[in-house]
This record gives sequence, structure tokens and C-alpha cells, in this order.
Amino acid sequence: MQDTIKYVLDETRIPKFWYNIAADLPVPPPPVLHPGTLQPVTAADLAALFPAELIAQEASTEREIEIPEPIRDVYRQWRPSPLYRARRLEQMLGTPARIYYKYEGVSPAGSHKPNTAVAQAFYNKQAGIKRLATETGAGQWGSSLAFAGAVFGLEVRVFMVRVSYEQKPYRRALMEAYGARCVASPSDETASGRAVLASNARHPGSLGIAISEAVELAVQREDTKYALGSVLNHVLLHQTVVGKEALAQLMMADDYPDVIVACTGGGSNFAGIAFPFIGAQLRGGRKVRVVAVEPAACPSLTRGKYAYDFGDTGRLTPLTKMHTLGSSFTPPGFHAGGLRYHGMAPLVSHLKELGLIEAIACSQLECFEAGLRFARAEGIVPAPEANHAVRGAIKEALRCKIEGKAETILFNLCGHGHFDMQAYIDHLGGKLTDQSYDEAELAMALAGLPAVSA
Amino acid sequence: MQDTIKYVLDETRIPKFWYNIAADLPVPPPPVLHPGTLQPVTAADLAALFPAELIAQEASTEREIEIPEPIRDVYRQWRPSPLYRARRLEQMLGTPARIYYKYEGVSPAGSHKPNTAVAQAFYNKQAGIKRLATETGAGQWGSSLAFAGAVFGLEVRVFMVRVSYEQKPYRRALMEAYGARCVASPSDETASGRAVLASNARHPGSLGIAISEAVELAVQREDTKYALGSVLNHVLLHQTVVGKEALAQLMMADDYPDVIVACTGGGSNFAGIAFPFIGAQLRGGRKVRVVAVEPAACPSLTRGKYAYDFGDTGRLTPLTKMHTLGSSFTPPGFHAGGLRYHGMAPLVSHLKELGLIEAIACSQLECFEAGLRFARAEGIVPAPEANHAVRGAIKEALRCKIEGKAETILFNLCGHGHFDMQAYIDHLGGKLTDQSYDEAELAMALAGLPAVSA
Repeated sequence: MQDTIKYVLDETRIPKFWYNIAADLPVPPPPVLHPGTLQPVTAADLAALFPAELIAQEASTEREIEIPEPIRDVYRQWRPSPLYRARRLEQMLGTPARIYYKYEGVSPAGSHKPNTAVAQAFYNKQAGIKRLATETGAGQWGSSLAFAGAVFGLEVRVFMVRVSYEQKPYRRALMEAYGARCVASPSDETASGRAVLASNARHPGSLGIAISEAVELAVQREDTKYALGSVLNHVLLHQTVVGKEALAQLMMADDYPDVIVACTGGGSNFAGIAFPFIGAQLRGGRKVRVVAVEPAACPSLTRGKYAYDFGDTGRLTPLTKMHTLGSSFTPPGFHAGGLRYHGMAPLVSHLKELGLIEAIACSQLECFEAGLRFARAEGIVPAPEANHAVRGAIKEALRCKIEGKAETILFNLCGHGHFDMQAYIDHLGGKLTDQSYDEAELAMALAGLPAVSA
Repeated sequence: MQDTIKYVLDETRIPKFWYNIAADLPVPPPPVLHPGTLQPVTAADLAALFPAELIAQEASTEREIEIPEPIRDVYRQWRPSPLYRARRLEQMLGTPARIYYKYEGVSPAGSHKPNTAVAQAFYNKQAGIKRLATETGAGQWGSSLAFAGAVFGLEVRVFMVRVSYEQKPYRRALMEAYGARCVASPSDETASGRAVLASNARHPGSLGIAISEAVELAVQREDTKYALGSVLNHVLLHQTVVGKEALAQLMMADDYPDVIVACTGGGSNFAGIAFPFIGAQLRGGRKVRVVAVEPAACPSLTRGKYAYDFGDTGRLTPLTKMHTLGSSFTPPGFHAGGLRYHGMAPLVSHLKELGLIEAIACSQLECFEAGLRFARAEGIVPAPEANHAVRGAIKEALRCKIEGKAETILFNLCGHGHFDMQAYIDHLGGKLTDQSYDEAELAMALAGLPAVSA
């Protein structure tokens, strides 16, 4: 038996800088617009939501942004994360491809999300903030911010999408174990939540709605800011430690990816693993295919429109140009809550428009099948979100088998599924189906996009 | 803020030998007896249960037993595991003590159990065995053997103590995700299970009963062997990779423990972290206090009798001299299933009799309180079993605070609590109580110990 190989970096190799792809883009991304004036937002517009350092990162075009030592000190608990060569999976598939995966499930909260949660908590603490408000889908982000809040002594309030809140009591308990307060969204604690509940008292919730609630709470109090787990430039930036480490680890393996696969919800996991490689290519390095895998039930990159839209359902956020299904779109309650978002990170959307990345959509069942295969081969049960990446990587490996090509495939296993076992229970019990969205609802949501010509 | 420090060994430092404390004991432990003849068991007596290599290890007095390369290859996925200095916890407690913890939750199944599961699966596979039968309490052992079975291509059947089976559906799902079959014990699949059900159709089960069921299944078929997750010498042996690594990691920190704390159910976690240090002491090295922490509701070391007893309730196993509450004793259904065992590893019991270790018992509530404190300080939610070690370490750290002593405390955080969040939900909701055993039942179980003079 050819066994799994692990590539480990010592902690002096934790990146000292985040990589900012804005520095290397051939065309700058469209500006973010103020929803009232439709003019590009200013730092002052964002000051109610974020501390100055994060606003500066949001707009920065510096290629390298230094990671403060206190953040690296916390990263050190689990970083550098391991890179594995999945030889048992390769053999199970009978593929000539070499499959590598970066494993972010080793973080305290079990996913890649602490990479940015720790950074955001640090900058807020530094700015004298006492409390953070946020939303969470599957709960990976909420529990990561709860962890970071515990480390830096910040109060954390999490609005958790109701369908996930009910599906994942263990994830909620994790947030509470860290000392955070977690409420189901839509909630009656905000005007946006109450408005949604008025129209449908049993609304399953969505990330768009939960964002509205958290933003509303943040703007009400001086000592409270908002924190977002994906989509924004600074969030994507913080995740680039993943790809930077993977680059160094593949160098140890004397290898380089032909194709990178990552699941995409808001885009931060995707950016984390892919941007450092895309950046290298943009600076004249080797070309790499990059495949974003999204859920068929919420396919912003493959079925959405590239247009200006709100980040939330309550239309409180600035307008960003992105692939969107419309901010009023509510995806069905499938088991990958972290991917249930109507939009896509503006930077990821921009790369798609520039032809630098590809995107595919996969159904729930094929993703869980892939996850079980992976668990039996590699011993790690992936989060339902990560199953999309596993599915994408297996697809590529099987293509290599048909074509007889020994390509190098890299994917990010962004989190473990320990808090998502109900989904596996349902899957093993034959209770999962391939949920799909309502075409009429999608058409209506797209028709309702704000009229912005840009 | 003084942050957590991580001590990492590279994979060349995965131990090449297990440490066998039998080589260094000043007095050999009492022999294991055949339950029929009351004579010391022979290798032939055990051949129906275990492959020859494991039987040889069970009786070996060699100090170092080589770890076969294929086992080290699998270990490599997560070993060497990290050693942390818990500086955030030290600050929270305001103790002058230095608290180190070895973290075994990084294994695929989330605890120290794969250290022996992988070894046992390997030796069985090598001996041509097709199927393994075992019991599990909390499910950490069952899921570890399920993982090991998936790696080596062995069928795995797990009898899970009913109270845990019902409390922990996620743990059961993990076993099934790895491809194992898991049934609630007592079950109607064995004569021992049916006998228990006949007397009480709603029996909560116990490790003793589940062992009877697994042993019964194993002896019925040539292609099936039994695997035990604790208690036996060879199981304790395999866990010594934990302590051996910790020794090397503390050397990196230029430190050495004054006190080692470990939770004890069957004894394998305790042995894993403690034996290499006790062995060093026995060979003339530095003296170290070693504290076993057991649940107040199942206190074999602190309230049991040191006597010959059966390992199971059905009285199918050989007789071993150990601290026991009596094999008919059924502990209450508290939330640390891995510690709900009537007996204690004969080697651990022997060390207790020799005065080489101490033991304390802690209640459920104080352990969960300690676990929450740890989670908020260090970011890791411990398994309920591991909370006992955390509680013991905090007790020692607070003693150091009172005494003004800067001692070095080492404990093993044997697993994470990701599959045990229901216990935390109950605790956070104020629903947990300090369950205690029935004194009359204990007296009766002790009165029923087999009459063996030795």
C-alpha cells in the first residue's frame, strides 16, 4: 500500500505577508458603489462597519500586506497547516494523477475561517471595539469568530441562518462553548429580521438576511462593528496564507499544480488556495487551470448575472459588481450552508470575467458520495462545503485517468464535517435529495437587480 | 498577551519503538489466569481472540518493541502530534505553573485511540483476518477501529454501549462513514446480549456487556478476531508513542514535568502519556508525580478492590488482577462513556499498588466547567473524558498558585469533543447533574468477585 504523504512546514514558515491579488490584476475590478449616491464608496462610508485597518486593506493595491505578529502568534496554534498527497484516494480511483490537498480542518474551529476571524478580531480589538456582530451559514464562520473573540476578549453576536441553526445544534453549541451568543435569523432582534418574519413567520433564512441583521446591529452602536466571513477583499486577502503555504509545500514535493480545485460560496476559501497561484501566473509564472465548484442549488458563478447588487437581502450594504442570483434569492435548504449565498466575491467574479478561472456546479448527492469516498480513503470526513471540492478533484482525477495524463491536482479541504454528521446520517439513510432552486424565483430575483449602469 | 506555544517534531521523529514498561518494573505484575483452570493463560488460550503478534506483545518483557513501517506510514498522517504550552490558560488561572498539553485530537478519528487501532488492524490483516469485532463506549474507540479497518481493508463490527449509542448519533455516523457496522449493546445479535435484555429490555449497557458480545462474535468465526481499545498490555504499549513524543517535545522546551495528569477509564490514555516518564524514573531518572483522574461515578482506582476479576460482564474473558468495581457493576449513564468501565488496566493497577502513581476522582460538573474554561482559553473543546484530565491539571495549577510554586504540569488532551456537543448543550443549559453510582449495587458487585486466591 502506498500511503498518504504529509508535507509539513515548521512554524517559522507561517507566511509573514498576505498576498493581495489587486496588485497583479491586468484590469482593476469595478469600484464598490454607495447605495444612495451610486458613487464609489469612501473609507468614511465604511467606518461604521469596519475598523480603519480593514478598510485600508479593502482598497489596497499593495502586493504584500504584513501580518502583525499577534496574529501570527495565534495562527501558530495550527499553522502551517499540513499539505497531503492523497495516495490512498489516487489508488482507489486508479488515476495516474497526483492529488494533493491542503487541510484547514486542523484549526480550532475546524475550517479555514479562523485565518480571517483572528485577523479581524485583532484589528477590531486594536481599534478599541468591544463587540462584533456577524452572520453565519453552516456555522463555520460564526464559530471561528467566536473563537477569535474568546482569544482577544471581544463579545461576539452571531446571526445564524435558521435552516442551519436547526440542522446544526452542535455548531451552535461550539459558538456558545467559546462564549458567543448565537440567534436564529431571521430574528425579532432587528428591524430587517422582523420585516422578513412579517412576510413569512417560518422563513428558512439566508446569508443575505443574516447579513442585514448583523449590519443593522453594528451601525447602531459605537462600540460594535461588523465582521464578514467571506466576499470582501480583506477577507479573501487573509485567506491567502493557505495558498502561500501550499506553494511552499508543493516545492518540497518538487511539484506544481496543473489544476487547482476549490469550492465557492462567498469565495474566500477559493481565493485562499488559488490567488497566490493565479498571481504567480499573472506575473509571468506557470499557467494553472483553476476550477471553482459551486452547488447546483445556488449557482452564482454558473447561472448568475455579472451585475451590481447588494450583498444582503435588506439592501443595507454597498453595491458591488459580482456574479449574483439577486439579493432577494433564497436558495433551498441543502446541506452546505456555507455555500448558500446569492452572490460571489467581486474579486472572484472579476477573475471569472477575465477568463482566469473556470466554474462548475455539482449536485448535493454527487458531493456527498465523493465525501464518503474520501473519508474511506483518507480517513477525514469533509464538511459538506468541502465535499464540493472533493467532487471537483475526483472529476479531474477521473478525466486524467481517461486521458492517461499524470496531472497534478491541488484542492483545499477547507474543513472537517464533525459538526455536520446529521447530513451524513441523512445521506447514509437515503434521505438526501438533489434539491434545486425555483427557476421562477431566480428569474424574479434577477429582474429585481438594482438599476446601475457601469 | 502571551500566546500558546506549539512544539512540533518533524515526521522523522515519529517513534520507531513502542516502550514496554514490563521491562522496567521492580516487581512483575500478577499473571493473567484462565477462567476455567485458574492457571496462567497461554498463548494458545488467546489465539481465538488475537493474532500471534499481539499475543506475543501482551506477554513481552522486551523494553522496546519495533513499530512496523506500515504502521508508522499511517501514523504519519497526524503524528507526531503537537505539544502545546497553554499560556492563555495559565494567565486565566493566574498560576505560576507551566501547563503543557499533548494534543491527540488531531488524529482522523479525533482521539488517541487510532494509535492502537492502526497497529491492531495491521497485525490482524497480516495474519489473514477478514473481520474485527469490538465494543465501544463513547465511540472514540469504535470510530478509530473503523478508520483503521478502512485503511487496511478489514470489515469492522462495533457493539456500542446503548446509552452512548443514543447520546451520540454523530459518533455512530462517523463509524458508518468509514464503512463499519455499529449496533447498540446489549443487542439481540449475541447470546450474552440476549441474556442481558431478557433481564432488562431497556438496559443502558456497559463496556463489560459490549465486550462480552464482541468476544462472543469473534470466537465463533475463524476469519474474525476481537480488538480491545484499552486495558490490555499491548493496547497500553501502542499508546506509548504519545509519552515518547512528549518527552522529546519537552526537551525542545528545555523542561521536564513535575506532575503528569491523565484521565483513566481502561487506562490506555493514562499509560500512553505516563509510562515513558515512569519508566525513565524506574531506570534512575527524575522522579515525577503521576495523577490518574477518574470519574466519581465510576471510580475503580479510588473505590474499587484490587482483585482478580473478569474483563466483561458475561464472564467470558480471562481473569486479571486489577482495581475493579466488579464486572457486574453498571455505572450510571454520565457523559464520559469512555470512562464507564468497571475495571482498570492490570498494569496501571499494579503501578498504583507499587505506589508509583496517585489517583483522584472528579465529578461530572467540575469536569465540564474545566472543559469550558479550557475551550475559552485554548480554543479546543475537549472530549468529556479529556475534561477529567483538564480538571486534574487545573487543580494542580491552582495548588501551585497557592503554594507559589512554578511547577511543570503535563497532561494529555486525549481527544476533542466535536462528537460530544450534546453533553455541552446539556451542560450550558443547566441540565447536567453529578450522577453517582448506587452504593448497594457496588457492594453487591464487589461481593460477587470471583473467588481467586493470588
